[in-house]
Amino acid sequence: VSASVVGPIGVIGGMGPLATADYFAKVIGATTADDDEGHVPLLISSDPRIPRRPPAILHGDTSPLPRLREIRDRLVAAGVSALVMPCNTAHYWHTDLSADCALPFPSIVESACREAAARAGAGSLVGLVATRATLAARLYEPALAALGLRPLLPDDALLDEAMLPAIADVKAGRVAEAGTPMARAVQALRDQGAAVVILACTEAPIAMSTAPAALQALCIDSTAALARTTVALWGTLNR
Amino acid sequence: VSASVVGPIGVIGGMGPLATADYFAKVIGATTADDDEGHVPLLISSDPRIPRRPPAILHGDTSPLPRLREIRDRLVAAGVSALVMPCNTAHYWHTDLSADCALPFPSIVESACREAAARAGAGSLVGLVATRATLAARLYEPALAALGLRPLLPDDALLDEAMLPAIADVKAGRVAEAGTPMARAVQALRDQGAAVVILACTEAPIAMSTAPAALQALCIDSTAALARTTVALWGTLNR
Repeated sequence: VSASVVGPIGVIGGMGPLATADYFAKVIGATTADDDEGHVPLLISSDPRIPRRPPAILHGDTSPLPRLREIRDRLVAAGVSALVMPCNTAHYWHTDLSADCALPFPSIVESACREAAARAGAGSLVGLVATRATLAARLYEPALAALGLRPLLPDDALLDEAMLPAIADVKAGRVAEAGTPMARAVQALRDQGAAVVILACTEAPIAMSTAPAALQALCIDSTAALARTTVALWGTLNR
Repeated sequence: VSASVVGPIGVIGGMGPLATADYFAKVIGATTADDDEGHVPLLISSDPRIPRRPPAILHGDTSPLPRLREIRDRLVAAGVSALVMPCNTAHYWHTDLSADCALPFPSIVESACREAAARAGAGSLVGLVATRATLAARLYEPALAALGLRPLLPDDALLDEAMLPAIADVKAGRVAEAGTPMARAVQALRDQGAAVVILACTEAPIAMSTAPAALQALCIDSTAALARTTVALWGTLNR
């Protein structure tokens, strides 16, 4: 392939691997292609050897940023034309990772919030399913506010007894067990007035895949939103 | 990560993308891990811009080998410690791709044949679900013979009316439509005396995922076999 061919889209993944695989499948699903050649080229780093994000944000433990930079730079050196990172919590470092990198690097947060705004009217309450670190860092608040939306956060009990156990189940491969607590979390946010619920952790859509259809219909899948952004970006890169 | 850390396993994929995503999911499924960090690091090239394999083998059309070498070399330059290629037909070039590369590069053909031998006794008939190119190139015959197994190939009618349409359906994302013709192909091989049937095309296990359990139980999934080989290889690389 000559130098004029557009490089693949680089994926900073492995946080966790199942969420990265889910993102990959959703990019394929969001593509209209009659054969192999119509699909979006991806170069996916699914390397889970990245310091844990929540303890770094919440307790000042080892920052994953140097390792994320290293993975990013390897993808750039391998010729990618853009970057994505299908992990919400890691978007705490998105500004750092995109500041010294000239490539397009769309944010999963902005992708999800745009889809929420398209679904819910201005002033609507938007429930958030996320890790404690994503919530503590207020990763979603600026993007929601810019679109005229109000965040509805889970309280500590809902976080500790439903969302976080479900997320941990998915990371350990116990997808079936994750369904019930995650559905309970989404239901609770709906009961508190959420017009839509953003699954603002890439493990959450995997947990919700076995939930009742009515609850799934209430949700904005951040992984799917980033996948759709990826397919659209690939279109613009090839224009 | 320091230079002493073992590089990820490189995946030459995109042939097609859904098969690569299936391989990725099967590596995760074959891993015992309680959290992100226990998973096998992968660097996956899912770049479908590779000249089509069947016309190159069957009609001498543009060879994909230069492009496969280029993708391989990019993965090697990015620091991978081993290579795999979850596409059976592309293994026509496996010898070329591994001859001038010092990294471990286990073959999907050998992985699948080992699992067939573990399941079927010496002298057993082993049915093959594969592309016409894989069959014409006799990619499976030497490995089966070395294990004392006898190949059972589909005739042209079964290939043209069941296997190839099902494979094309998966490549076009029509997974549900692929189930019936693929199940018919496996059933036909069983009726002709196959003790086991190797799904020797990475689209075939995706097509078979909706087939009756009894037919699925007859099959050796080449994608899953390569995934298990990958997890075992990662163990040895880290010993």
